[in-house]
Amino acid sequence: MSKSINRRDFIKTSVLAGAGTLLVPKVVLGHPAVREKVRLGFIGTGMRGQWVLWLAAKRPDVEITSICDIDEGMIASALKILKDSGKPEPRVYNNGDEDFRNMVANEDLDGVYIATPWEWHHPMSMAAMNNGINVGTEVPAALTVNDCWDLVNTSEQTGKFCMIMENVCYRRDVIAVLNMVRQGLFGELLHLQCGYQHDLRHVKFNDGKQPYGGGVEFGEKGFSEAKWRTLHSVNRNGDLYPTHGVGPVSTMLNINRGNRFVHLTSTATKSRGLHKYIVDQAGTDHPNAKVKFKLGDIVTTVIKCANGETVVVSHDTNSPRPYSLNFRVQGTDGLWMVDNDSIYIEGVSPEPHRWESAQPFLEKYDHPLWKRFEDQAAGSGHGGMDFFIVRAYIESLKRNVPPPIDVYDAVSMSVISPLSEQSIANRSSLVEFPDFTRGKWKTNARIFGLNDEF
Amino acid sequence: MSKSINRRDFIKTSVLAGAGTLLVPKVVLGHPAVREKVRLGFIGTGMRGQWVLWLAAKRPDVEITSICDIDEGMIASALKILKDSGKPEPRVYNNGDEDFRNMVANEDLDGVYIATPWEWHHPMSMAAMNNGINVGTEVPAALTVNDCWDLVNTSEQTGKFCMIMENVCYRRDVIAVLNMVRQGLFGELLHLQCGYQHDLRHVKFNDGKQPYGGGVEFGEKGFSEAKWRTLHSVNRNGDLYPTHGVGPVSTMLNINRGNRFVHLTSTATKSRGLHKYIVDQAGTDHPNAKVKFKLGDIVTTVIKCANGETVVVSHDTNSPRPYSLNFRVQGTDGLWMVDNDSIYIEGVSPEPHRWESAQPFLEKYDHPLWKRFEDQAAGSGHGGMDFFIVRAYIESLKRNVPPPIDVYDAVSMSVISPLSEQSIANRSSLVEFPDFTRGKWKTNARIFGLNDEF
Repeated sequence: MSKSINRRDFIKTSVLAGAGTLLVPKVVLGHPAVREKVRLGFIGTGMRGQWVLWLAAKRPDVEITSICDIDEGMIASALKILKDSGKPEPRVYNNGDEDFRNMVANEDLDGVYIATPWEWHHPMSMAAMNNGINVGTEVPAALTVNDCWDLVNTSEQTGKFCMIMENVCYRRDVIAVLNMVRQGLFGELLHLQCGYQHDLRHVKFNDGKQPYGGGVEFGEKGFSEAKWRTLHSVNRNGDLYPTHGVGPVSTMLNINRGNRFVHLTSTATKSRGLHKYIVDQAGTDHPNAKVKFKLGDIVTTVIKCANGETVVVSHDTNSPRPYSLNFRVQGTDGLWMVDNDSIYIEGVSPEPHRWESAQPFLEKYDHPLWKRFEDQAAGSGHGGMDFFIVRAYIESLKRNVPPPIDVYDAVSMSVISPLSEQSIANRSSLVEFPDFTRGKWKTNARIFGLNDEF
Repeated sequence: MSKSINRRDFIKTSVLAGAGTLLVPKVVLGHPAVREKVRLGFIGTGMRGQWVLWLAAKRPDVEITSICDIDEGMIASALKILKDSGKPEPRVYNNGDEDFRNMVANEDLDGVYIATPWEWHHPMSMAAMNNGINVGTEVPAALTVNDCWDLVNTSEQTGKFCMIMENVCYRRDVIAVLNMVRQGLFGELLHLQCGYQHDLRHVKFNDGKQPYGGGVEFGEKGFSEAKWRTLHSVNRNGDLYPTHGVGPVSTMLNINRGNRFVHLTSTATKSRGLHKYIVDQAGTDHPNAKVKFKLGDIVTTVIKCANGETVVVSHDTNSPRPYSLNFRVQGTDGLWMVDNDSIYIEGVSPEPHRWESAQPFLEKYDHPLWKRFEDQAAGSGHGGMDFFIVRAYIESLKRNVPPPIDVYDAVSMSVISPLSEQSIANRSSLVEFPDFTRGKWKTNARIFGLNDEF
């Protein structure tokens, strides 16, 4: 567990000297790699962490020198993944909840990847940045407004970045639509919809042995996400998981770079689905049938942007339904809607006021990144988008440039959860977004999806 | 223009004596007609009025004894419709804006049908009820909260009803879905969506001669709806036209009969579409290119109901797009969505979490009214739904029973416009719905679509 102080200090110093460069986004085209390999530490090697570990381990330019988890079974699985990938055995930090602090203090890392329960993303990101290590964190980056500010302030003070690993920004259809937006196909944007509509009942409850379904246990008796994620449904009422929808929408609306979220209102339905699931599966006598879930089954949030656009965000995880991220992108010339896989563009679509299939548009506007990396992305998880988000993180580290989804994006997406909770607690009253860029959104340039680099 | 005072007073007295019966909704099954024919007056014989006049004139149980309009051309068209239908020539009230008052004072009518510019619906409905005449008014019934109260108070005081002619309640798919809701297919309702997404640019602007398109004139230089409707887009920012979506949703949610709308928030996008249309069609030098339109292109309203459901209402009339009323009906067991013409019901749909076509469900749950009147409804306008709404109005008059969509429905739908304007004017702040039933919503029974009568 030796620590290469010299190398570490060198990087820290050089980065701080160039902090202006790091924090002022700019086109990264043509930035050469400043290091051939990056040293990564993995904090959290549960189901999601293992998947990303497997992806990262396939790359010859990645060294995974340490991993951290509190669950011996998960660590064993992670070690096997690395062994099977032909990677050297990493140092293991498994000494309880706070051992990640030893890892970021002792290890000479270019970056950490964090895939732990939501409430740990903030303290782990903070600890990493404060030890001179860049961060790639799973969503959401933080759960409170104060913790969002913490991340911004710490990133600015340390010169380390905090990238949120919002993979849906790279979903093939979504980034093709971003391409359409930027080429003006929809005209001036007016209204976007998105959300997280995913029946998570089999994720929130299981039998304590398998990750998905088979029982109605959660918390201490649950396994994997049911161990912790379900408690958020017990204790919170708001949009608990906005980033898969809002991430892509933010890139299309140039949030934090020419635009920003100004205010929102959130409205929740009653809570029925989780209790019903328990009773339907295990009867009214099961102890969990007494649990009161605070989370409304469907939460609708409406955001107003500085440039006059509106965004509707749906959160819908307690009910039986087909999966959908609810995307709609509408401008003065037409719109795309994901649920009917259709587009209508005035003057382009053959029949007035009639939908046409989105597929030819998605092919025509396929993003340069997908054209370049299509073969590598195949089979990399979540329809290929995991390949791109992991690659973007690693390439940012290698080139020592700001990531394409930065700390301002991390917090402007994540803060929707606490703001929506606040709105719902006050009967859908208006809640203002903090301006985490402190005015820089007015002049910041775009950083995401600019070319085929990352 | 003689007035049968005796008959009129008889009806008025008998109705007032039975006011409790009239105002307490109950199942109308088996109510016999108390009169074989109804005498109708038509106020407003523009495009919409003529259509309904043509429908009503086909019925042997309808006498159209008077019509009222300020436009000689429209009156001439209406007279021709009646003549072609073999109906006697009605008395004509055409002496300016206020001549409708003479009509309702002088004529012996069972009901009036009102199809005038929106701002006239309230004073005309008031005048009719105050003269002992029942009302069927086009949507919306009123434009302000006070005017909504006026209608309620006047209906209660006079014992006359005020039916809002919300035809979409009878749309074949919509009333089939109501049937599904009532048979419990979706489980307990949680979340509904609806709206008015209709590119009205060719309605809001024309050449002053034809009703649809051909120019960018409106107001005094416009024709038909462009003469008056467009001014609402100049002067108001809110959901100007909520009832086509909210009407059906109200029947599904039992609004005013076991449930009610409690509060809403509304958020509007910037206003771009109407100005752009003028400039695109007629250039920046056209005088109308200087007009500032207050109406945001897309207005999103979120309503919370007393029983914990939420409703999202979209208003989207300034942009190129396919027509859609945006329906979604979601409960604890599954959902229907109109835009992809699909349904998913847990335990019923063959594949977990996969949509199936809504068509077999729409056929299976076809409403008894449609089964009975399918042949007559065909060709009657707006996919047959105009047949049912006109029939419901006339049957209510003939049987002397409350209509299936009453004054409380008229105002709880219509009031969304002024409330949404208020919310938008205060940056999407929360606005409370008045309880127009004064608590009776808790015990009122359902009145709409109960059987195959009307």
